[in-house]
Amino acid sequence: MSTPSAIIWSNNQLQLLDQRVLPTRCEYRQYDDPFAVADAIRAMVVRGAPAIGITAAYGILLAAQKLTTSPTSADAWQNALRPARDALANSRPTAVNLFWALERCDQVIAEHGNGDALIPALTKLAVHIHAEDIEINQRIGDFGASLIPADSIVYTHCNAGALATGGYGTALGVIRSAHRDGKIRGVFAGETRPWLQGARLTSWELMQDDIPVTLAIEGAAAHLMREHKPSWVIVGADRVAANGDAANKIGTYNLAIIAKHHGVKVMVAAPTSTFDALLDGPQIPIEQRPADEITHSFGQRVAPENVLTNNPAFDVTPAQLIDAIVTEYGIIHQPDRAKVIAHLNSNKRK
Amino acid sequence: MSTPSAIIWSNNQLQLLDQRVLPTRCEYRQYDDPFAVADAIRAMVVRGAPAIGITAAYGILLAAQKLTTSPTSADAWQNALRPARDALANSRPTAVNLFWALERCDQVIAEHGNGDALIPALTKLAVHIHAEDIEINQRIGDFGASLIPADSIVYTHCNAGALATGGYGTALGVIRSAHRDGKIRGVFAGETRPWLQGARLTSWELMQDDIPVTLAIEGAAAHLMREHKPSWVIVGADRVAANGDAANKIGTYNLAIIAKHHGVKVMVAAPTSTFDALLDGPQIPIEQRPADEITHSFGQRVAPENVLTNNPAFDVTPAQLIDAIVTEYGIIHQPDRAKVIAHLNSNKRK
Repeated sequence: MSTPSAIIWSNNQLQLLDQRVLPTRCEYRQYDDPFAVADAIRAMVVRGAPAIGITAAYGILLAAQKLTTSPTSADAWQNALRPARDALANSRPTAVNLFWALERCDQVIAEHGNGDALIPALTKLAVHIHAEDIEINQRIGDFGASLIPADSIVYTHCNAGALATGGYGTALGVIRSAHRDGKIRGVFAGETRPWLQGARLTSWELMQDDIPVTLAIEGAAAHLMREHKPSWVIVGADRVAANGDAANKIGTYNLAIIAKHHGVKVMVAAPTSTFDALLDGPQIPIEQRPADEITHSFGQRVAPENVLTNNPAFDVTPAQLIDAIVTEYGIIHQPDRAKVIAHLNSNKRK
Repeated sequence: MSTPSAIIWSNNQLQLLDQRVLPTRCEYRQYDDPFAVADAIRAMVVRGAPAIGITAAYGILLAAQKLTTSPTSADAWQNALRPARDALANSRPTAVNLFWALERCDQVIAEHGNGDALIPALTKLAVHIHAEDIEINQRIGDFGASLIPADSIVYTHCNAGALATGGYGTALGVIRSAHRDGKIRGVFAGETRPWLQGARLTSWELMQDDIPVTLAIEGAAAHLMREHKPSWVIVGADRVAANGDAANKIGTYNLAIIAKHHGVKVMVAAPTSTFDALLDGPQIPIEQRPADEITHSFGQRVAPENVLTNNPAFDVTPAQLIDAIVTEYGIIHQPDRAKVIAHLNSNKRK
């Protein structure tokens, strides 16, 4: 067994594995409309920063395919695609991969918008971003695994796995590579409220690959770290800032503080497409999600009517709590601004 | 409005407010059988260390009432009541108030078991434990409130409120007294997985008293502490050990570590009936609850079949992370073994 693809492109249509109904049902939804794709990102049919980036590129491709007349200049293409681009850009604010993918589409439109070759060029780009992400994750996985000691318990949060990416995963890619190398005695997956990505996705994904996983509520993290002495907390990121701070699923900052308290190291596994050199951690926009994610469960009310809520989807872990950021180019130990900028400058993507 | 009583004794019957269906339904269940009471404690119809202690005393009273022939000696009473006592003692292992209440019943049986007056004496004891708990909580509330600065945001976990006690509450008693004194700008209540006592009980209880409460997932604690700078984390306890360590609902230890990281103080509000001078924190037995509390939600599966789980109901916060333990006799600042023992010795209960 292995994890099914979160994203499939075939017959000029996009298929997304509906992650809201896993693990009880494995259902793909079909999309030929970019606005429906934007809605799917917002509704979390697909989630995870790299997967959102890939999906956005396919969204632009769908928008281009859907035009009834072909624009004849790059500017005309940009104008025609703007409503779809805006919808995709506004779907979720925190993951920077979304904007990174849209900008790569912009470049292709600028280069190929004057001829007949735009749709083939956008197709090539989207498929390339998708395939490249898998290869990038395998490299992240191997770099990250090199840091894991033998016979390790590791701790992860949310789902930074094959389901959150083109395939293989970032944090779970590190765990996959370390497991392949015989270093993993066990993985703790925090259930990750309110969407339960740890319960529904990570534990399922690891079980598909026979990697030993134990599910726990987030409240048990400190107790379990004291009892089981993991070597590393390994998480993904939705945006890594210039100063080395990392936005990731709400609860990551908790886990990093608790890890430090117990002498457990913290690894952030993220491709450079997740980096945003233009801002620092405190400036990362944090999405507030609707209250009903925490006031209701399966349509049933679990909190009083009219209760106030505060439901941020992400938090920012300061660089001081991070021992290693692992990208497709290598490892940034004890990250800070200078090391992050140097890493990006010496490894410019083509 | 104010919070309805968790426990009502009337017409020689026990009524328990079914806390599993709050806040959507407010239903009392009637008990005249001690074994059904033990089941109700295990099933969390009633929960919270002081409330469990009170309920256990009524359970012994129900057992005595139910005997068809009256034993004529203390030993005979003890033997006749042993099955019910064992069932109650085995209902939940962590809260020490349960054993404290059963021991008070043992004393009354030893004193009154030779005459006709045992049932009136047990009734008087149970009603006294119940009424005394409310008065104790008011004293804890006032001592605790004296530590709260003006215009405070405070943070609480689980439900250490009227619903967890005879009335008024321990941690929520402190918040009630501080709110009465005009010191509370807002309360954050962590939802408290897996039973959601924060969502279902604490936010409801505080709203009944018009105390401003905001509900959040536990994963948001570090983010919210950084953003909102609470003055204190205020929690109850299920057992306070001789060395000042405190067992409380799973997630408390997380919160204490996160509080320390942000310079937020940690208060444990607990009556001396919650103290166990016979052991230290690491020796406190920690109840493991069934896996389906985290693999299912409202009967729906949210995790893969056969996933391993680790579901402790409590954790132990070390004394080093606690700034104040507040009892009905006063405040133990920066608790340690010497201060805890001195506090207990100088305030022996009659």
